[in-house]
Amino acid sequence: MSPEDFRRHGHAVVDWIADYLGGVETHPVLSRVAPGSIRDALPTSPPTHAESVETMLADLDRVIMPGITHWQSPNFFAYFPCNASGPSILGEMLSAGLGIQGMLWATSPACTELETHVLDWLVEMLDLPTFFRSDGEGGGVIQDTASSATLCALLAARDRATGWRSNEHGLTGGPPLVAYASTEAHSSMEKAMAIAGLGRANLRLVEVDERFAMRPQALAERIAADRADGRLPIFCCANIGSTSSTAIDPLGPIGEVCRREGMWLHVDAAMCGTAALCPEFRWIHKGIEHADSYCFNPHKWMFVNFDCDCFWVRNRADLVRTLSVLPEYLRNEATASGKVVDYRDWQIPLGRRFRALKLWMTIRHYGVAGLQRAIRDHVSWARWFADRVRDDDRFELVVEPPASLVCFRLRSSDDANERMLAALNATGELMLSHTRLEGRYTLRFSVGATLATKGHVERAWRAIESAATGIG
Amino acid sequence: MSPEDFRRHGHAVVDWIADYLGGVETHPVLSRVAPGSIRDALPTSPPTHAESVETMLADLDRVIMPGITHWQSPNFFAYFPCNASGPSILGEMLSAGLGIQGMLWATSPACTELETHVLDWLVEMLDLPTFFRSDGEGGGVIQDTASSATLCALLAARDRATGWRSNEHGLTGGPPLVAYASTEAHSSMEKAMAIAGLGRANLRLVEVDERFAMRPQALAERIAADRADGRLPIFCCANIGSTSSTAIDPLGPIGEVCRREGMWLHVDAAMCGTAALCPEFRWIHKGIEHADSYCFNPHKWMFVNFDCDCFWVRNRADLVRTLSVLPEYLRNEATASGKVVDYRDWQIPLGRRFRALKLWMTIRHYGVAGLQRAIRDHVSWARWFADRVRDDDRFELVVEPPASLVCFRLRSSDDANERMLAALNATGELMLSHTRLEGRYTLRFSVGATLATKGHVERAWRAIESAATGIG
Repeated sequence: MSPEDFRRHGHAVVDWIADYLGGVETHPVLSRVAPGSIRDALPTSPPTHAESVETMLADLDRVIMPGITHWQSPNFFAYFPCNASGPSILGEMLSAGLGIQGMLWATSPACTELETHVLDWLVEMLDLPTFFRSDGEGGGVIQDTASSATLCALLAARDRATGWRSNEHGLTGGPPLVAYASTEAHSSMEKAMAIAGLGRANLRLVEVDERFAMRPQALAERIAADRADGRLPIFCCANIGSTSSTAIDPLGPIGEVCRREGMWLHVDAAMCGTAALCPEFRWIHKGIEHADSYCFNPHKWMFVNFDCDCFWVRNRADLVRTLSVLPEYLRNEATASGKVVDYRDWQIPLGRRFRALKLWMTIRHYGVAGLQRAIRDHVSWARWFADRVRDDDRFELVVEPPASLVCFRLRSSDDANERMLAALNATGELMLSHTRLEGRYTLRFSVGATLATKGHVERAWRAIESAATGIG
Repeated sequence: MSPEDFRRHGHAVVDWIADYLGGVETHPVLSRVAPGSIRDALPTSPPTHAESVETMLADLDRVIMPGITHWQSPNFFAYFPCNASGPSILGEMLSAGLGIQGMLWATSPACTELETHVLDWLVEMLDLPTFFRSDGEGGGVIQDTASSATLCALLAARDRATGWRSNEHGLTGGPPLVAYASTEAHSSMEKAMAIAGLGRANLRLVEVDERFAMRPQALAERIAADRADGRLPIFCCANIGSTSSTAIDPLGPIGEVCRREGMWLHVDAAMCGTAALCPEFRWIHKGIEHADSYCFNPHKWMFVNFDCDCFWVRNRADLVRTLSVLPEYLRNEATASGKVVDYRDWQIPLGRRFRALKLWMTIRHYGVAGLQRAIRDHVSWARWFADRVRDDDRFELVVEPPASLVCFRLRSSDDANERMLAALNATGELMLSHTRLEGRYTLRFSVGATLATKGHVERAWRAIESAATGIG
């Protein structure tokens, strides 16, 4: 495709996207297709000869769109948001158009330097400890997801604990290494244990309090028991915003335990870290000075389209020692000089896209004040929604919402709640998701879509009210 | 940004990309900036208030572009290609615009089904064994990179070898597990060993023959020695296109060794797999019926912009058992029915973009015949270049090029070769990279940029000829 043909088709695709975003509310939020129906509409074999972009866009509308669940709909309140925005899409377009590889500084210096720079901006924006900045011993990097960030942190902790013998010679021999997270921790922690060769069973799920936050005393007791059994505690993952209910683990007391025990403290703030843009929400990070690593996801709640997880380490040398490789074909003068960062040594894959562009453009489009306004709106709408739940005798608020997620349920059976969720999502008018808290089926109403307004939250509440009447 | 503002800015960004691609040859291929110079041109703190897209695009030109190394230039012959194309960029734009999450079938069925479908197409296109198709026990998935695919394969092999005890209880106890790859294998293999807790030292680098391909007899001898020492061989990674020289490991005899020893055979065809689009190059896959897993990178040599690695397994149950997690908040009827694929269990991260769109659109834009034509062109231009090297007494061809990469050197010192490379890249007119083969500094001339023509290869040869005269 020539650059001029790309220009023509590119304009058509931009129009398609603008029309999609403008009309996203006309689609049922949750896709209604049955398993296999998309494939049934696709040809069994690939085309031998070239097809036109017009044909592809027609197929996109006809075949693909019925199988889309609309995460960008302002009526999407399920899971967590994945709130893309115009400037972010523009940044992703530019990244695709430039088509560069950022594995080394030398393979496109701007890709590395803009990333380091914007991650230093974010340390200031979130008021994170200055030791995470790149001008000391720390530094930040963009990962695809918090799952990968958590894995990288665990690997560095594993190797630090063994003096990098595990990295060089493997885990055979030595005491079993154990890690800790709350019973509400994200599933990626269990997955990381399996990947790192530490074993899922060596993850201790620590008891939580009535707000579903980790109990530091329980953590200390678990550690003592493990030490008594000859195991070596190496790592704790604290959640700032658990997936089920955005519970905020208390970093201060957890961090004190980790320091005393010589353990790595990783803070997974994938969802709620963004709240720290606003001074009034910075209490969530109290005690963060104990952290060895920290991550949050601009692709969840800061208007950057997936994927964009920001990950910082207190001591980059530990991470790089764990993940570095230097084959001859990647050697270059800049790397040898020690004056540059090579991000291939900060992540699992070798190659990397220019993701800093979309992050940079999104921050500049909103400005810090604009981002703060949006976050305050979302939190205030969630509080408004929680107040409606509290005021309605048919419902109970399962936990006070710390940020923009409301966990609630009908004062009825699990089955009634499950039926209500299915009925709501079947309308196509909105979408919620569920979890279990204290074993009970709980509905999750997560505010944060880019196109959402207070009006969408109000309409959602009315739909939920009337569904409750239907379920009786 | 409203949909209408996005439309306006989106058109401007498409024009920027079209102008960029149309004028890419006006930039020096290799960026000339010094470490830190991009950061020096950026404001220390983030903006408080919103900035315009026009300002950002001006900064892109002024600050970022000098720090770009132009992988899309038709004069880029370094490393391996990363050949984006118009239809692929359009697909990436649509993926960003839709902004969906493909972690589960249920979170957007089209994302999963299109991916499964196009990976079945590719089994046919590359004439891979039918056991990789999704309608049997196997199946394919898009990974970010071959590094991640290799890691996933190694993890499944590790756990299969221990009956998944390593996954559940970690690697403590039991004999050391060892893996094998050639001395020319990609660095990701060493990194995967470190990540998986197996240890870099437990990767055996097997000797190669005069074409830099693994010697199966040497593999068998290494395995025998490890067994005699009480170690357990579990995995072999064969390269179809090594990074230094695109050496093709002989899958038939390697596969027979792996079968006999009960080892997992992973085939890393990241670079050269694409060649199998053409029947005349399918000899590279001879013996592939022994493979337990296979990957190749459409983002290298099949016109799909980074990231897009296609990865297949013979038995998806092994992979899923290794990587699955199922927290309550991800439970859903479709998953419970067993009728759908949930790709979160086929990869390291949880979240995933809609990458199948760009792969689908690229295949349809070119058609199979169009892709074959492009691959044949690239190989024939590389052969033409190799003939020039052979015909010029000042140069030697280090190895017969199996595909589109030519490895050559001046018949002179390593230092002279290094100086010639630096001089060539400093002109800004073209870019090559280097490696070491048999310990000697070797230049790599890699054909495959989307915009390259025979004329670019001819001009590159003239530039190299005259640089050789300069180095004398």
